Amino acid sequence: MPMGFIKLKQWMCRSLLLALSLTGSVSAETLLVQKQTLEIAPFTTFNGETIAQVRVGYETYGNLNADKSNAILITHYFSGSSHAAGKYRADDAQAGYWDAIIGPGKAIDTNRFFVVSVDTLVNLAVHDPNVITTGPASIDPKTNKPYGMTFPVISVGDFVQTQKALLDRFGINKLHAVVGASGGAIQALQWAATHPGFAERTVAVIGPGFKLDAHSIAELDTWLQPIVLDPNWRQGDYYAHSLPNFGLAHALRNVTIAALSSDWLDKQYGRQWHDPHQSPAQAFQHAFKISSELLKRGFDRAAVVDANHFLYTARAYQLFDVSDRVPAMKGRFLFIPAKTDRIFPPAMSHQAAEILRKNGVQAEVVEIDGGMGHLDGVFRIQLAGQAIKDFLQ
Amino acid sequence: MPMGFIKLKQWMCRSLLLALSLTGSVSAETLLVQKQTLEIAPFTTFNGETIAQVRVGYETYGNLNADKSNAILITHYFSGSSHAAGKYRADDAQAGYWDAIIGPGKAIDTNRFFVVSVDTLVNLAVHDPNVITTGPASIDPKTNKPYGMTFPVISVGDFVQTQKALLDRFGINKLHAVVGASGGAIQALQWAATHPGFAERTVAVIGPGFKLDAHSIAELDTWLQPIVLDPNWRQGDYYAHSLPNFGLAHALRNVTIAALSSDWLDKQYGRQWHDPHQSPAQAFQHAFKISSELLKRGFDRAAVVDANHFLYTARAYQLFDVSDRVPAMKGRFLFIPAKTDRIFPPAMSHQAAEILRKNGVQAEVVEIDGGMGHLDGVFRIQLAGQAIKDFLQ
Repeated sequence: MPMGFIKLKQWMCRSLLLALSLTGSVSAETLLVQKQTLEIAPFTTFNGETIAQVRVGYETYGNLNADKSNAILITHYFSGSSHAAGKYRADDAQAGYWDAIIGPGKAIDTNRFFVVSVDTLVNLAVHDPNVITTGPASIDPKTNKPYGMTFPVISVGDFVQTQKALLDRFGINKLHAVVGASGGAIQALQWAATHPGFAERTVAVIGPGFKLDAHSIAELDTWLQPIVLDPNWRQGDYYAHSLPNFGLAHALRNVTIAALSSDWLDKQYGRQWHDPHQSPAQAFQHAFKISSELLKRGFDRAAVVDANHFLYTARAYQLFDVSDRVPAMKGRFLFIPAKTDRIFPPAMSHQAAEILRKNGVQAEVVEIDGGMGHLDGVFRIQLAGQAIKDFLQ
Repeated sequence: MPMGFIKLKQWMCRSLLLALSLTGSVSAETLLVQKQTLEIAPFTTFNGETIAQVRVGYETYGNLNADKSNAILITHYFSGSSHAAGKYRADDAQAGYWDAIIGPGKAIDTNRFFVVSVDTLVNLAVHDPNVITTGPASIDPKTNKPYGMTFPVISVGDFVQTQKALLDRFGINKLHAVVGASGGAIQALQWAATHPGFAERTVAVIGPGFKLDAHSIAELDTWLQPIVLDPNWRQGDYYAHSLPNFGLAHALRNVTIAALSSDWLDKQYGRQWHDPHQSPAQAFQHAFKISSELLKRGFDRAAVVDANHFLYTARAYQLFDVSDRVPAMKGRFLFIPAKTDRIFPPAMSHQAAEILRKNGVQAEVVEIDGGMGHLDGVFRIQLAGQAIKDFLQ
């Protein structure tokens, strides 16, 4: 990591930062980016329900060319946001989650491509100032109170609808590629199902293939279980009361456990105790370190997350099934599973690619092994950088 | 399965039933078995706490020979009991969980071996009339009320202590083998650690190797999480109040999900809805079939399970770590992992066997693939029948 940055100039809302390290040599280029807002009013859901108005945030990196043929859509994962690359301020502690592969000269080269990334509807992190979304925590104009569980069920098809609406406003009528990890891979394949050929290339990183199977549906139930068990959840009607953040913290902890490989967790935590003076052999209340630390992170994270949004996002993915749309799919496909992924093991990607090839569609699989499990698709994505770069030629 | 049974004769407490099928031919032999009780008073735990009296149930199959050299100990899994083989009554719907490999002429041949199986302390199913155990739901003689969370933490070493006490009463001072699945494999390896060479052979079916790693500790946390989140749990002090069975049912459901392979769950449930008229796309409350059915089974099961016993059993296994005792281990070892096991994947067994071999101890691995995941070690154990039979020669 460079030791510091000198901001030189900001063009438009998403210009380049040429960063000089403290040694004075050019060591990195960091995009400076800004969140923008898309509003759709009214919005009709995939299931035919009407919402008076929805707003979602988005970011763009690079410039749209004259014939609008250089757009790449990035779709984000379950607990992610549209902040895929760059920084809002030069001194941000962290860049967007895929900054390793999105930027000038990188695998998804913003000198060449116009990259668009959109917050999902019912995004978990509704209280994060850098996330703009609409969901159960939003105010229902009919009641001037949060929708709660009266908000209509949202599907991945609705995520795609908002993305399509944004591309329409830019006048983009084809995508060079759609690229996403995990839930983002699901959205990418939903694009291939709903708008066959609109994206010339589809890159599905750490995805489940063309549907969520029974176990994945149940795994999402396991994740959300502590929320609905929290008495503060009150069937979703908690906005005027104490928040179900105890359950929510456990739910967020469940996601982290599932997303990390056994090896990674064992190296990080092993069998250490939370308090070296309090043996878990002496009292049930004495915790192992892995138990206390991941729960603490869950509580920290819960501060910007809405519990009902978690439930709605989980349901959106549970509903994913485009397996009957495969015969209509067009373009080229690249699947990038992670070797030690327990959520969506590599076999799912291999099976999906095989199904496409049987349908006469070009599909390849590149496995990565960064040792982190599912999260290889986020934090070790540079391992697939060259494969993605080649695929986008 | 035979269509019916005719009971011919019952010898002692554990004699043979020669069953005639409706066709009249001899199609199966079923052991008739009876639960017996071991009492230890006082009992000092592995961690030095004293319990005035503990009682555990046990079953035996076959006969102890004159020189007491033909005993095999069977150790049971997390949610199991000592009912490993045979039936209590000829018309029982189900035989013991390993009836496929324990009985006259079977892999663990009760014509040759004296087989002993013992209920664990803090056994989950304390309200099952066929389980005898001592734990938080037991009456503390000091207060005449259930111990609740004042019951001392129990470890796998304590399970082994009760088993050793029982063998002592029989005058058995060596075991032909100790054989267990999952938590039973953990107990078997605890035997190898605490009493090296006492068992000449150790068979660890679907086990974790010599310790629970960080992820397995966290997985047990995930299982028990709904109990501690249930407001009826009241920090374990619920015996005079409503029971935390809502949380407990979810906990039992979590175990089932983890123990079954993705393929098996998908074949069984797929993406079916609980109610064919209520699409999960229309309301969050509309469930998938896998969600409702496995939870219903959890509620059914919860009727005989105590929530605190679940917590104590989970902690006992979380504490398991005999990795530093491997150099002392003696005898021969057989590991039988299941190919699609997500709880303790086969790599754990292969690694454990390799460590033993490096220590000059004979160890082999036989993988089974019954398609059920972890539960292959229970419901598909006949796939390992020949391997176990050969190993016991």
